[in-house]
Amino acid sequence: MQIDPWSNVNVKDYDRVIKEFGVEKTENLHKKLPLENIYFKRGLIFGHKDLNKIIEASTKKKPFVMLTGLMPSGRFHLGHKVVADLMVYFQNLGAECYVAVADIESFLTRNIPLEQAKKVAIEEYLTNYIALGLKPKKTKFYFQSNGSKNYMNFSKIVSKKTTFNELKSVYGDLTPEKIISALTQVADILHPQLKENNGPKPVVVPVGTDQLPHISLARDIAYRMRSEYNFILPSATFHKLIPGVKGGKMASSDPSSAIFLTDSPEEVTTKIKKYAFSGGQKSLKEHKEKGGNPDIDISFIYLKTMFEPDDKKLNKIYQDYKSGSLLTSELKEITIEKINSFLKDHQQKRKQAIKQIDKFIIKE
Amino acid sequence: MQIDPWSNVNVKDYDRVIKEFGVEKTENLHKKLPLENIYFKRGLIFGHKDLNKIIEASTKKKPFVMLTGLMPSGRFHLGHKVVADLMVYFQNLGAECYVAVADIESFLTRNIPLEQAKKVAIEEYLTNYIALGLKPKKTKFYFQSNGSKNYMNFSKIVSKKTTFNELKSVYGDLTPEKIISALTQVADILHPQLKENNGPKPVVVPVGTDQLPHISLARDIAYRMRSEYNFILPSATFHKLIPGVKGGKMASSDPSSAIFLTDSPEEVTTKIKKYAFSGGQKSLKEHKEKGGNPDIDISFIYLKTMFEPDDKKLNKIYQDYKSGSLLTSELKEITIEKINSFLKDHQQKRKQAIKQIDKFIIKE
Repeated sequence: MQIDPWSNVNVKDYDRVIKEFGVEKTENLHKKLPLENIYFKRGLIFGHKDLNKIIEASTKKKPFVMLTGLMPSGRFHLGHKVVADLMVYFQNLGAECYVAVADIESFLTRNIPLEQAKKVAIEEYLTNYIALGLKPKKTKFYFQSNGSKNYMNFSKIVSKKTTFNELKSVYGDLTPEKIISALTQVADILHPQLKENNGPKPVVVPVGTDQLPHISLARDIAYRMRSEYNFILPSATFHKLIPGVKGGKMASSDPSSAIFLTDSPEEVTTKIKKYAFSGGQKSLKEHKEKGGNPDIDISFIYLKTMFEPDDKKLNKIYQDYKSGSLLTSELKEITIEKINSFLKDHQQKRKQAIKQIDKFIIKE
Repeated sequence: MQIDPWSNVNVKDYDRVIKEFGVEKTENLHKKLPLENIYFKRGLIFGHKDLNKIIEASTKKKPFVMLTGLMPSGRFHLGHKVVADLMVYFQNLGAECYVAVADIESFLTRNIPLEQAKKVAIEEYLTNYIALGLKPKKTKFYFQSNGSKNYMNFSKIVSKKTTFNELKSVYGDLTPEKIISALTQVADILHPQLKENNGPKPVVVPVGTDQLPHISLARDIAYRMRSEYNFILPSATFHKLIPGVKGGKMASSDPSSAIFLTDSPEEVTTKIKKYAFSGGQKSLKEHKEKGGNPDIDISFIYLKTMFEPDDKKLNKIYQDYKSGSLLTSELKEITIEKINSFLKDHQQKRKQAIKQIDKFIIKE
């Protein structure tokens, strides 16, 4: 099994990922967490590497880092929100936060000019991160094109610690720009542990499954550099993608597939009513007789993974839908109301967030 | 024909290089030069690319750049002096000078720590450059590990403009660290033409033949970037290696093969008398009868390529040696005297040079 992080891969066989990439299952891990988290509890995060190091550091109030990256393309939607919520979650656990804008990577692999990447990263991503709760204290929001000299050199230095054969086995087909992108990502993941950043210390990288190759490579390279740098192998969490409204992928390029965090209540209502893939039966009569299937119903999945943290309430919705007493139109109404309630609050916070942007931008 | 710049290649078949790499012969080019130069005149520089652009810029007093790099390893010997003299030569023609310390490359390909590279670059190389006449005005002496942000990013950006197949055909076997080294070199060669450096403008890169692959790659990439960056294809001069005392390679690792610029008169005398490969005959009698062969005689070659600029004097030595009237021991005495005279003066200048170092070190 090979995962190409630069294709629009949609990894679905999570059991296979767990088996072939040595990912640990999360299972009952959420009960050990210092603070409850819906993504762990509801299984959106299906796997991890070495998360116990992070739980231990947080519990013992020892320093640790959350690092993640963003590809500055497209409009910010619910799929992006997951990573943002996890940043905030780990910050609340006590993490120092590093947020890497992958502008070098987005230029090399998607031809996005650096200036455009900067604008999108700040206006679309950072603004939403702040509105979702990211605090400026102990947060480094940096650009790959504008990191410290040590970081930039480190992205070259790590090339000594891998081979073509390894890169091929991790990434499949390679090009020079993919190698540069991969090594830059390795530097992103490992540089919080450099001496200038008071390392070594545990680092957790919350990522979607498509980014797994970078985690594997960074861990292998960290291991090979351990004698010189004393690196702790980086930890990671892996989450499933939030499905798109229509049941496929949520993609900025297909607006009816995505709930954007700037959507109006009318837009959300239309998208869910018109497009949301439903687990209901074909007719009202049939639905009442046979009941619906909440497990494949996008409205239910959104409630489960994001908008209904209360287990009892969620379970009642599940049972009512399954029994047929809750209709598809009613389920959709619940979801629409929840999303719009969140967005109303969020869009207020975004306005405030814009004023805080300067506190996050590092000038190296 | 493939040239691996990271092996200790000793390219000898210059005609083949000219043919297969599209290098232009120098031939009578030295007569067109604005200032006479012994390396052109005596054929040590056997080839070039686009040197006319440089001659034209110099003649018309238009801006142009001399860029070259140094690999900070080993002690500075006569072989290194050739590049230094060419830097000074182009500076005297009006060039703005960029001197790149290839510390990232020497770390990646020779495992030299950055700190050690810095020390060697300054104490061995820069000190000698200054003593040989390099002036601080319009000179940037920089480290690959400490260039400007734009330069550092540019070394990644250029990865988009090449392919594996091209890199393989230029360099042969590749490793990730060789790719990084090659792309960093391309950035070295092209970045004087970036807008921040008031480019585009002609750039000449004086190098040994082993560095030809970097020139070829940089020119091809410059061509592909022309619409966006308006680059002028970089020019280059290619020189033969100064042979070692014993006739093989001059190498810091074999002290009896090299004349170091810190050698004492006694050391030089011993090296030439004891080790210098001679074109003389086996016995005095035979030498007087048959004459010697100056073309393979290291003492004569040193005079020709470096220490006897006067054509008439050189020609007399050549004829006398060939006729047998000049003995090997006498020829060696002439060379010893010339080298020691140069070194005495140079070592005085080195002491002064140390005081000037700070004027050259760029702090980015």
